[in-house]
Amino acid sequence: MKKVSIALLGCGTVGKGVIDLLAMNGPLIEEQLDTEITIKRVLIRDMPKYEQMELPDDILLTTDFADIVNDDEIEIVVEVMGSADFAKDCIEQCFKKGKSVVSANKDLIADYGMPLLKMAKECNVDFQFEASVAGGIPIVRPMYSSLNSNTMEEIIGIMNGTTNYILSNMTDTGMSYETALKEAQEKGYAEADPTNDVSGYDAGRKIAILATLGFHSALTFNDVSVEGIENIAQEDIQHAREMGYVIKLLAIARQDGDGISLNVHPAFIRKGHPLANVGGAYNAVYVRGNCVGDVMFYGQGAGSLPTASAVVSDVMNVILHCNINITGSRDFVWHDPKLKPQDSICAPYYLRMVVDNAPGVLSSISAVLAQHKISIRSLIQKDETTEIAEIVILIDSSAAGLVNQSLKEIEDLACVRKIANAIRVIEV
Amino acid sequence: MKKVSIALLGCGTVGKGVIDLLAMNGPLIEEQLDTEITIKRVLIRDMPKYEQMELPDDILLTTDFADIVNDDEIEIVVEVMGSADFAKDCIEQCFKKGKSVVSANKDLIADYGMPLLKMAKECNVDFQFEASVAGGIPIVRPMYSSLNSNTMEEIIGIMNGTTNYILSNMTDTGMSYETALKEAQEKGYAEADPTNDVSGYDAGRKIAILATLGFHSALTFNDVSVEGIENIAQEDIQHAREMGYVIKLLAIARQDGDGISLNVHPAFIRKGHPLANVGGAYNAVYVRGNCVGDVMFYGQGAGSLPTASAVVSDVMNVILHCNINITGSRDFVWHDPKLKPQDSICAPYYLRMVVDNAPGVLSSISAVLAQHKISIRSLIQKDETTEIAEIVILIDSSAAGLVNQSLKEIEDLACVRKIANAIRVIEV
Repeated sequence: MKKVSIALLGCGTVGKGVIDLLAMNGPLIEEQLDTEITIKRVLIRDMPKYEQMELPDDILLTTDFADIVNDDEIEIVVEVMGSADFAKDCIEQCFKKGKSVVSANKDLIADYGMPLLKMAKECNVDFQFEASVAGGIPIVRPMYSSLNSNTMEEIIGIMNGTTNYILSNMTDTGMSYETALKEAQEKGYAEADPTNDVSGYDAGRKIAILATLGFHSALTFNDVSVEGIENIAQEDIQHAREMGYVIKLLAIARQDGDGISLNVHPAFIRKGHPLANVGGAYNAVYVRGNCVGDVMFYGQGAGSLPTASAVVSDVMNVILHCNINITGSRDFVWHDPKLKPQDSICAPYYLRMVVDNAPGVLSSISAVLAQHKISIRSLIQKDETTEIAEIVILIDSSAAGLVNQSLKEIEDLACVRKIANAIRVIEV
Repeated sequence: MKKVSIALLGCGTVGKGVIDLLAMNGPLIEEQLDTEITIKRVLIRDMPKYEQMELPDDILLTTDFADIVNDDEIEIVVEVMGSADFAKDCIEQCFKKGKSVVSANKDLIADYGMPLLKMAKECNVDFQFEASVAGGIPIVRPMYSSLNSNTMEEIIGIMNGTTNYILSNMTDTGMSYETALKEAQEKGYAEADPTNDVSGYDAGRKIAILATLGFHSALTFNDVSVEGIENIAQEDIQHAREMGYVIKLLAIARQDGDGISLNVHPAFIRKGHPLANVGGAYNAVYVRGNCVGDVMFYGQGAGSLPTASAVVSDVMNVILHCNINITGSRDFVWHDPKLKPQDSICAPYYLRMVVDNAPGVLSSISAVLAQHKISIRSLIQKDETTEIAEIVILIDSSAAGLVNQSLKEIEDLACVRKIANAIRVIEV
């Protein structure tokens, strides 16, 4: 049986998962590859912390990346650290030394995936990153090797478990955003500083990666317009339910003859749609190709062993390639993307506003919408007190620029106290 | 740009889809491969029929397979005929001539997939068959190249669009099985002789293929215990609904320390489960691995372009392999399967029976169940007429052998007119 030595950069949740998975499924994996896998070295930051972890005795811990990159026995390096810049530097050094790399690092791939893939090819090594999007769900490889006969039209993902957990909890229990966030933090689903998740940045990085592959376009996180869930109130959840929708944080990539748009924002999605039923911390990616039609991938988007499942499958692919000397042989094609102006992106909108409970209010608001040729699909007015009323309007598909301009003008009306929310309806 | 010539065996729904897809997405596909694909020859049975089809002029039609297998310019043969034995013979001849093969033929793969993969390897050619299971949904390649780090525990599929369309229609509209079947036939979802679909054979072939790959075991259609939907009545659908379930035709492969079981049968599945929401002619495959947890793949399991999407992606993979001379390089590992006796397979059951409306009936029935140590979870008795009553029993998880023996004894009771149905409840 052949032998291959690998190294891990990082030993957090995912790194530990890789060690555990290889211990659990080692014989099955080695039989498939006719190759014995040894984790030879692990790069860590804090030696005392890891000396207390019960890692197998034969793994050498180091705080010095040079120990790994200069070890010629190590053929494959698994990067599971998280930060982008240091990881990028390490990976480039690995490539130069002829080592293939598997990464689970979405921050890195979203910003540097394309140049790293190019460099890997030049160095005749593999660079694989299935785990960077949606944890254990196979989506990166299917995108470039199973759906690649299609012109991709749409990729819509629920790709952040934290926000899906919070929104599902708000929907199921009626709790407020603040309470749901606190509970998610207590249960370990949200971090102490939840910004990266709740503001949509994490989902934005993942959609940039998938759109790069699906649209064969040089896209990065900078191309994604991002909006988080911080402004979603229980009232919005309830109005959505009454109208037959649920609210999800969606990452949306679309491509048509006019160009590409990349967005992350909360959205109304109709109850019967497969994406609407993705609950808790689960992830799902819904893809529409011009021939395959709509396809959805669903599963656990995070966690130690699910993410390790994707990482180790990548390692197995690299080993297969090493064994027949074809690392670095896959070509990826990219074009410069033509991005659509955000103002031109159309969707129906749900609008919720707090207004004076007085005659003429509806007429003033609908006049503004009419002036911008925005058509009202439905409207509900509820008196909150004798002084204040709440108005909920569903408008037909309208360009974001027009909607925003209208909302500014409506907010300037003397009878309008505030625009409480404006949420797009995604019709798929 | 490199050039590759391919041939199609068959030009029905899927073959025409391949021609159409290459016309639609040719440039995108060729750019990814740096290779121009030409469909040089197409094998057909009935020349006059195809001369009326509007096929591209440069495609040579033939009724003689020898024209294809002896054409050295043809590197890849796409088998989309359907029948098993003639297809097998053709494919073996292609392998011997150094041609790689892509097949969408589930009948063939379910019975001969493993020996054909072995022969392909010996001949240094590729053999790919993504489209043989669940049409356009990527599941075959993900199973062996993205989930292969897992010990697979369970594969549950809704993999037959015809039966899912019929059952969904019965659920949504309240129509009888007979009416739903007739409508499916009128709309082209079911064939004139629907046996292959409604009796579960089609789903059985697909689960044999997936289980072979997922469990690394030499399994064929013969190892699948198959039961169809012909016996599902509107009463069963309604009882399921009242209990919080829907009825689906499930193909189930399970593996644990005691062995492997392969079953196709109608089943109760709880309403909230992702598989329960798979409607109409859609397919879904739910997979549980020991590390990735549960993952689901959803999409169109049939149709011209969706199936062609999978076929052409396979062709693209073969071309990539041809271009770097690595066809036939993937090893597949198989063990002799240890199949569990069907009698030992446990599940909760829904039992519906028609009985005399008389004192002592319930007591006699429950005595039989108690004698076999089968525990009753819930029981509903409804008087149909003054003479006849219907009894619906949900029993706790019990071995199939015991359940069948009990049902025989219950049917022999003088007060029992018939066992109307016995349907397993799948708890996932």
